[in-house]
Amino acid sequence: MKFCSQCAAPVHFLVPAGDNRERFVCQQCDTIFYDKPRIVAGTIPIGQDQVLLCRRAIQPRRGYWTLPAGFMENGESTEQAASRETWEEACAKVELGPLFSMITVPHIKQVHIFFLAQLSSKDFAAGEESLEVALFDEQDIPWQELAFATVGQSLQRYFADRQQHKIITPHVFDISPQQALVQHI
Amino acid sequence: MKFCSQCAAPVHFLVPAGDNRERFVCQQCDTIFYDKPRIVAGTIPIGQDQVLLCRRAIQPRRGYWTLPAGFMENGESTEQAASRETWEEACAKVELGPLFSMITVPHIKQVHIFFLAQLSSKDFAAGEESLEVALFDEQDIPWQELAFATVGQSLQRYFADRQQHKIITPHVFDISPQQALVQHI
Repeated sequence: MKFCSQCAAPVHFLVPAGDNRERFVCQQCDTIFYDKPRIVAGTIPIGQDQVLLCRRAIQPRRGYWTLPAGFMENGESTEQAASRETWEEACAKVELGPLFSMITVPHIKQVHIFFLAQLSSKDFAAGEESLEVALFDEQDIPWQELAFATVGQSLQRYFADRQQHKIITPHVFDISPQQALVQHI
Repeated sequence: MKFCSQCAAPVHFLVPAGDNRERFVCQQCDTIFYDKPRIVAGTIPIGQDQVLLCRRAIQPRRGYWTLPAGFMENGESTEQAASRETWEEACAKVELGPLFSMITVPHIKQVHIFFLAQLSSKDFAAGEESLEVALFDEQDIPWQELAFATVGQSLQRYFADRQQHKIITPHVFDISPQQALVQHI
């Protein structure tokens, strides 16, 4: 950020009076700009015992597999965002279940949330942001070709819970830059 | 938003190519600005059977009671944000429990999350943003003087769960402008 979006004056990066963090501040019109974490919402879509994954057609991580998910928009709920992204990326209608995971990724300023979801039918297809969409049995999950650490962690925990016959929701944790490096986020 | 924060040219509000929502766009340097929902994180701090509430020293809703909560910052996890706000507003150390509620408030572009929390001691005090801080039994909760609908809803559901001897976590829902009007958010 270089200029004030209200008056076009140059901004400064400093700790405003009464605050304890650096923010971009316009000293001409006294506007303070707060940059905050963003929410990425998605689903773990289940059809019988299989999980629906999408192969990304866009960067970052083009060609890698992901759960359907994307940035929550203003004016929608977390559940609506998760369902919308599942529709946009996988052309799949789902019935949302409980919140399964809420994962902070501090170094990229994001919080990823995944809801369990039941596929309403076997109708699905690659949306504009996907190269292909497919159902996977647990043993066929392409672990080495997953796009993001939060996807891998959510899938691992889902299958671990399922093996214990006990879905524990939600899993709340965060992913360090070191973990993300190994798992590509 | 009137000017581009990258190059100071006037911005336009339009649907960018490949998108389906209006964004502020700079047609001089091709920057697209995405405004997204923000996270407010807090706790339901429990000491024995009582809940800790803070009376707000700042606007909005100065003088009304709230659970300790505030905007999550970049670089911290949801849990860290909730603990930090509890410390800043109530000078209280807590041991975080499970995520209790995740409530979208679409018309103000916020998602409020509250963790259950055990007070680590009886040491607490009004922080800079609080006029006073106090422990309340269920029958003494100042329902008519609560600051925000998400606080009232979280407390109602917490006491309802407790009456059933079954804490169901998390409660995921959203609050409409009509509900918010009645309950002040």
